[in-house]
Amino acid sequence: MKKIINGVDQVEEQMIEGFVKACPEYLKRLGDDLTVVRAQKKEGKVAVISGGGSGHEPSHGGYVGKGMLDAAVAGAVYTSPSVDPIYEAIKAVDAGKGVLMVIKNYTGDVMNFELAGEQAEDDDDIKVAKVVVNDDVAVDGSLYTVGRRGVAGTVFVHKCAGAKAEAGGTLEEVQAAAQKVIDNVRSMSMAINPSTVPAAGVPGFELGEDEMEIGIGIHGEPGVKKMKLEPADKIVDMMLEKILGDLDYTGSDVAVMINGCGGTPLMELYIANNHVNDVLTAKGINVYKTWVGNFMTSIESEGFSISILKLDDELKELLDAPADTPAFTQV
Amino acid sequence: MKKIINGVDQVEEQMIEGFVKACPEYLKRLGDDLTVVRAQKKEGKVAVISGGGSGHEPSHGGYVGKGMLDAAVAGAVYTSPSVDPIYEAIKAVDAGKGVLMVIKNYTGDVMNFELAGEQAEDDDDIKVAKVVVNDDVAVDGSLYTVGRRGVAGTVFVHKCAGAKAEAGGTLEEVQAAAQKVIDNVRSMSMAINPSTVPAAGVPGFELGEDEMEIGIGIHGEPGVKKMKLEPADKIVDMMLEKILGDLDYTGSDVAVMINGCGGTPLMELYIANNHVNDVLTAKGINVYKTWVGNFMTSIESEGFSISILKLDDELKELLDAPADTPAFTQV
Repeated sequence: MKKIINGVDQVEEQMIEGFVKACPEYLKRLGDDLTVVRAQKKEGKVAVISGGGSGHEPSHGGYVGKGMLDAAVAGAVYTSPSVDPIYEAIKAVDAGKGVLMVIKNYTGDVMNFELAGEQAEDDDDIKVAKVVVNDDVAVDGSLYTVGRRGVAGTVFVHKCAGAKAEAGGTLEEVQAAAQKVIDNVRSMSMAINPSTVPAAGVPGFELGEDEMEIGIGIHGEPGVKKMKLEPADKIVDMMLEKILGDLDYTGSDVAVMINGCGGTPLMELYIANNHVNDVLTAKGINVYKTWVGNFMTSIESEGFSISILKLDDELKELLDAPADTPAFTQV
Repeated sequence: MKKIINGVDQVEEQMIEGFVKACPEYLKRLGDDLTVVRAQKKEGKVAVISGGGSGHEPSHGGYVGKGMLDAAVAGAVYTSPSVDPIYEAIKAVDAGKGVLMVIKNYTGDVMNFELAGEQAEDDDDIKVAKVVVNDDVAVDGSLYTVGRRGVAGTVFVHKCAGAKAEAGGTLEEVQAAAQKVIDNVRSMSMAINPSTVPAAGVPGFELGEDEMEIGIGIHGEPGVKKMKLEPADKIVDMMLEKILGDLDYTGSDVAVMINGCGGTPLMELYIANNHVNDVLTAKGINVYKTWVGNFMTSIESEGFSISILKLDDELKELLDAPADTPAFTQV
């Protein structure tokens, strides 16, 4: 394992400290938890929180700020956060209007967020709602999941739910906006190189020098299949076939996210986007907005995912609304 | 070589097309050159252009937009752009107030930008000025360079010169602001894994499983030395020793950039930043602002650079000014 770290037992702690020191104008740490909240709590609005295992940076702490999240709760690398820090985060961000939890569909995440939410409702009279993101069309059920996994499309949920909350939406309205994104976004991923969890010390899976894995999860969970590495355009075709076969995008305006897995150069993401854009355009699907970059990573894994969100006027407005966070700023 | 590309001869073309398709609201391509200019030409101000070989994405095209650059001219991967496209870019962006060229100190870049600038002055009566960025303290003279190399500190130059131009500065004032950044910024880099130029097909250098190279250049040019991989904090100490020994930062406010080489996970960049921030603070150097991310990459190389910019009131104001570009947006 070749990493720029100190000790494997110091990774999460030093990472969050280095993160908070990089952007104190945006956020602060909540106690000793791997949780960040906005530097200035925003009063008078619904709060939106998310979280999950570390290793997906800038998810989710990078999206804490105006127009997106109010808190992000991390666990150890690729490990669900436990109930206590989620509960503490809910209490810290609630401003009397309720809290929406954006949960990726992994068994541990769902269970712990739900327990924390129930505790906050029972003990503290906080209104808590949730959505569960399951945008990955690759497989139905996986290593840590019953049903589809939640992957990069989650960041579109943060953007739209956050914008709705910032605009003064009620808890029910913010939840409905988040659910609308979930209902209309589909994602698919691939990788040419795996990631290594520091504490494990060895890659999560193995690929030959000429192999890739299609449909892989954000923790390196098995995908659809290992196969010979193909040219970028052919890879994109395979991924789009699955995505476009799952939801009818015909004639729609869409937002596209080309998400890097952490070790992928922008060069390759742009080459992928070139063909994604061409294929969608040829099919009469109108690309309204494109995000290219590292939004939901798998440590240093090399590969990318495509997420396609079908838009209506409400989602366009929410997607276009200003945001100001460490990892996503839009005027 | 394991890359998500089509053919090695299509990399630059498909990358720039995929880039422009991702953000037509920000920029457009200039003819068939590997050049991007702002989607809407900004009239009535000094224009700022930069460029260099491809492979450093998001540099430099990612910084074309409000408050930073007016055009970015790319060459093939790790290859200086030739005179013609630079000349065409100068003509395209000049709005009658003159053009500042921000050049990284590589022999080919400097020569071609200078020739293009002279041609625009001679043939088109355009006022052209230049600055040459040489922030890398690692080595004095290298594979493609006489004197120090220009590396990630260049992005601070884009930010400050761009802000000065946007605020209505004259060509001389914009050039002076850029030069002030150059005079006050120092950088140093390291890598644990090399990059592979697609057309070459093999990594630019070799490192053992437990080796790193300190002081490496952004094209994989040799650094200070290859050595055994050390803990992150010790690596940071070595890099800071060289940077802080080169310029007196005592008691100053500084901007810090922790720049990823392209394949480095944010996890490791934040761990590096944690110690950089601690060391500077302990030395009585005040961290005014921190940028952590991929600003000036070396394709998929793994490693990072540290840049430290000593600030005065003018540089703080320029650094804090709004910017809106594909790779850097600040409210």
